[in-house]
Amino acid sequence: MSKGLPKRSEDYSLWYNELVKKADLAENSAVRGCMVIKPYGYSIWEKMQAEIDRMFKETGHTNAYFPLFIPKSYLSKEADHVDGFAKECAVVTHYRLKNDEEGNGVVVDPEAKLEEELIVRPTSETIIWSTYKNWVQSYRDLPIMVNQWANVVRWEMRTRFFLRTTEFLWQEGHTAHATKQEAIDESVQMMNVYASFAEDFMAVPVVKGIKSESERFAGAIETYCIEALMQDGKALQAGTSHFLGQNFAKAFDVKFANREGGQDYVWGTSWGVSTRLMGALIMAHSDDQGLVLPPKLAPIQVVIVPIYKGEDQLNAISEKADGIIKALRAVGVSVKFDGRDTYKPGFKFAEWELKGVPVRIAIGPKDMENNSVEIARRDTGVKETFSLENDLTEKIQGLMEEIQNAIYQKAQDFRTENTRSVETYEEFKEVLENEGGFISAHWDGTAETEEKIKNETKATIRCIPIDAVEEEGKCIYTGKPSKVRALFAKAY
Amino acid sequence: MSKGLPKRSEDYSLWYNELVKKADLAENSAVRGCMVIKPYGYSIWEKMQAEIDRMFKETGHTNAYFPLFIPKSYLSKEADHVDGFAKECAVVTHYRLKNDEEGNGVVVDPEAKLEEELIVRPTSETIIWSTYKNWVQSYRDLPIMVNQWANVVRWEMRTRFFLRTTEFLWQEGHTAHATKQEAIDESVQMMNVYASFAEDFMAVPVVKGIKSESERFAGAIETYCIEALMQDGKALQAGTSHFLGQNFAKAFDVKFANREGGQDYVWGTSWGVSTRLMGALIMAHSDDQGLVLPPKLAPIQVVIVPIYKGEDQLNAISEKADGIIKALRAVGVSVKFDGRDTYKPGFKFAEWELKGVPVRIAIGPKDMENNSVEIARRDTGVKETFSLENDLTEKIQGLMEEIQNAIYQKAQDFRTENTRSVETYEEFKEVLENEGGFISAHWDGTAETEEKIKNETKATIRCIPIDAVEEEGKCIYTGKPSKVRALFAKAY
Repeated sequence: MSKGLPKRSEDYSLWYNELVKKADLAENSAVRGCMVIKPYGYSIWEKMQAEIDRMFKETGHTNAYFPLFIPKSYLSKEADHVDGFAKECAVVTHYRLKNDEEGNGVVVDPEAKLEEELIVRPTSETIIWSTYKNWVQSYRDLPIMVNQWANVVRWEMRTRFFLRTTEFLWQEGHTAHATKQEAIDESVQMMNVYASFAEDFMAVPVVKGIKSESERFAGAIETYCIEALMQDGKALQAGTSHFLGQNFAKAFDVKFANREGGQDYVWGTSWGVSTRLMGALIMAHSDDQGLVLPPKLAPIQVVIVPIYKGEDQLNAISEKADGIIKALRAVGVSVKFDGRDTYKPGFKFAEWELKGVPVRIAIGPKDMENNSVEIARRDTGVKETFSLENDLTEKIQGLMEEIQNAIYQKAQDFRTENTRSVETYEEFKEVLENEGGFISAHWDGTAETEEKIKNETKATIRCIPIDAVEEEGKCIYTGKPSKVRALFAKAY
Repeated sequence: MSKGLPKRSEDYSLWYNELVKKADLAENSAVRGCMVIKPYGYSIWEKMQAEIDRMFKETGHTNAYFPLFIPKSYLSKEADHVDGFAKECAVVTHYRLKNDEEGNGVVVDPEAKLEEELIVRPTSETIIWSTYKNWVQSYRDLPIMVNQWANVVRWEMRTRFFLRTTEFLWQEGHTAHATKQEAIDESVQMMNVYASFAEDFMAVPVVKGIKSESERFAGAIETYCIEALMQDGKALQAGTSHFLGQNFAKAFDVKFANREGGQDYVWGTSWGVSTRLMGALIMAHSDDQGLVLPPKLAPIQVVIVPIYKGEDQLNAISEKADGIIKALRAVGVSVKFDGRDTYKPGFKFAEWELKGVPVRIAIGPKDMENNSVEIARRDTGVKETFSLENDLTEKIQGLMEEIQNAIYQKAQDFRTENTRSVETYEEFKEVLENEGGFISAHWDGTAETEEKIKNETKATIRCIPIDAVEEEGKCIYTGKPSKVRALFAKAY
């Protein structure tokens, strides 16, 4: 088929872009920085959403919906928050268009100017905390455990499919608690939920950790995160969970009567993952032939391609396929039969490879004679002839699990190989230059040093891993004493 | 409990508003015309979404996602469309705020002005058809059967919870076809899907019909709709499906190579339902005690309220309840046990009535002695003592079906009683004034007459019913000949 991809080794960035377009995941729209998520791409996102939403509900959360627009003045109520978001938000100033008298089509009606401009939410802490003020009077009203699935807008100058777009889809959880510890526990819990989702469903191993001050969310006391490593050795922040302290409660005056009869400010958290996860999924596993999808998130898990000459052969193969399809669907495997007569088998093979379908079953005349099928794995490319004397359903179910695990293992091996400890700044720069990946290094804990390293090398601190062990060391940059290693990398 | 509702008979509109707030469905936000959908309200919407989405997928549709923003110039490409939407859209003119030098907080940065203003989608035909242009080359690329779940914004001066809000949630299907007939069939199919959902899940009987020209969607050739009748005798448009002809294909130059080798413009449809359905659901069934939810859409189908004194009794009842809960959940019934010790049973009864839970099970000391429970139906208020010698699960499952049907039947009876045929304009006005409801009357088919009737009576043509039979008649207003009756009503 003509849809050749660039090679990862030659131009990783171009490979990614072309893959997204050719596998029908997304495309650019007429609006700068906004993409169209195409049906195939969206069906993967839906599978992600369903699992994540289930995990949220199992941990006691419910969904709600808050307005798209936020009064401009709300943004400035939390000082750090406004600094973080004012520079990149879309502003609604008018509410009507009108026909231009000079005949130039429609123009903005100057008479329909808003008294206070509205911003399109870049994140919803402010509008949500202004609402929580009405929901909370006493400790009996706490905790509030709410999530919303929504679109948000952050005006981006340089965009990239899924990883950075002006509009993106996400979920944002916003919880309110009576005590500090409860809020911290919730932030940690949600980081763990994200990590489980990434590892168990996306098959992407992640490092759980805490952000340094300069990478922290604007308005948070602590930002927990999960960080993944892509095949080009760059890191990708896949989800964050923020302990907000009482910052937003104070900004919006959200107090409650505590058990002791006094008044306290409420403790908050917020946490989110977005369509960025699609970028992580694509980049973590795919190869020069196209997408490689973990079975648990593949919209089509098995594709059946008939190889035939003439209608009689097709009919016989279709009939055989029907039985297979029914049996597989009965155990929850999603199957597609590609009976299109406008394309040749080779074209179809390449197309389903491009789209990352985990298992392909081909049935040709020889298979019909021998009562067999050919099974091909997308992740390894390994093919085998399988006799239908044996239980195909069991075989496929086993394969689904095997592939899911194999993809994860491969990504984990890659990460292990590409996580290095260094002791000096020279070594640091050398590894970063030649190998990339995660670099574990001592750092003196100051934003100043972090900034200098970033300016000189483009590497940032991805996180201080949760499981980092205390050890005496010296900052690679300043030589000052350090007790724990940070994880550095160039990042998306 | 103190949460008394106004009576429907005294002030229907106030009753509705208070019900929405007190049953925790929604509340007003800080942004004019935008509401917050609260967790309980949203959980009903989620159940609706799940069923509707399933129905879409069963009829061959897939989901995708298109940008929130639409370039201003796109709106004017379809002449009728711009007239319909330009006056009520939010306009983004800038993409950045900055700190005011005079210290007044943040202000719009004048240097960050967009070259072309963006409108926040009021509906997505234009951005979607501009995309379809790239998706369609030949008849092999058709049909395109795509839906999106999204938020849209229509600047409304007078708003009402769920029924009319500046921002609302909806789904919009946009399909593209090779032939006119296929597009018409699709429009009709989707009207039927909406009708099935309304009747089978919402328990709201609807009239399927065709809109008159003046009520048609801006840019459509034909608008199919479903119309429901509320308890105050006003009609509510619950869903529309538009046959767009080639209007948007021509506006965005979407052509395809047909089977014969020529070039044709593509035929289109669009169709949508929104959070407005929540309004229909609430208004159709609820009473002076609160919500009445059909079991199929109730987030909580059964609530169990223990009646006890002291912890020992509570523990014993809880244990009994546990068994019931497990048995009910095993057959897919959603149950909540309300063990709050901060509220009395009477308060809880009223709260769950307000929230429309279809069945309440109360267990008190007497029940414990007699191995029974008290079952109360929300829709009829009927209570019975049920011996646990019998199969409670079977009983509840039966009740769910019975209640679903009873609610539908009640709404249907109401509609039958409130649908009247009239022959003269005098009669028309009299019925409208004294009784409301649907009025079936002959009309000469002109927009002029429709406009006059609307101005004089506030009644509009809801639709020409699909199942209307041809009959010779005379327009009630002009006396001109008419072949079919239109259905008039005052409407939300």
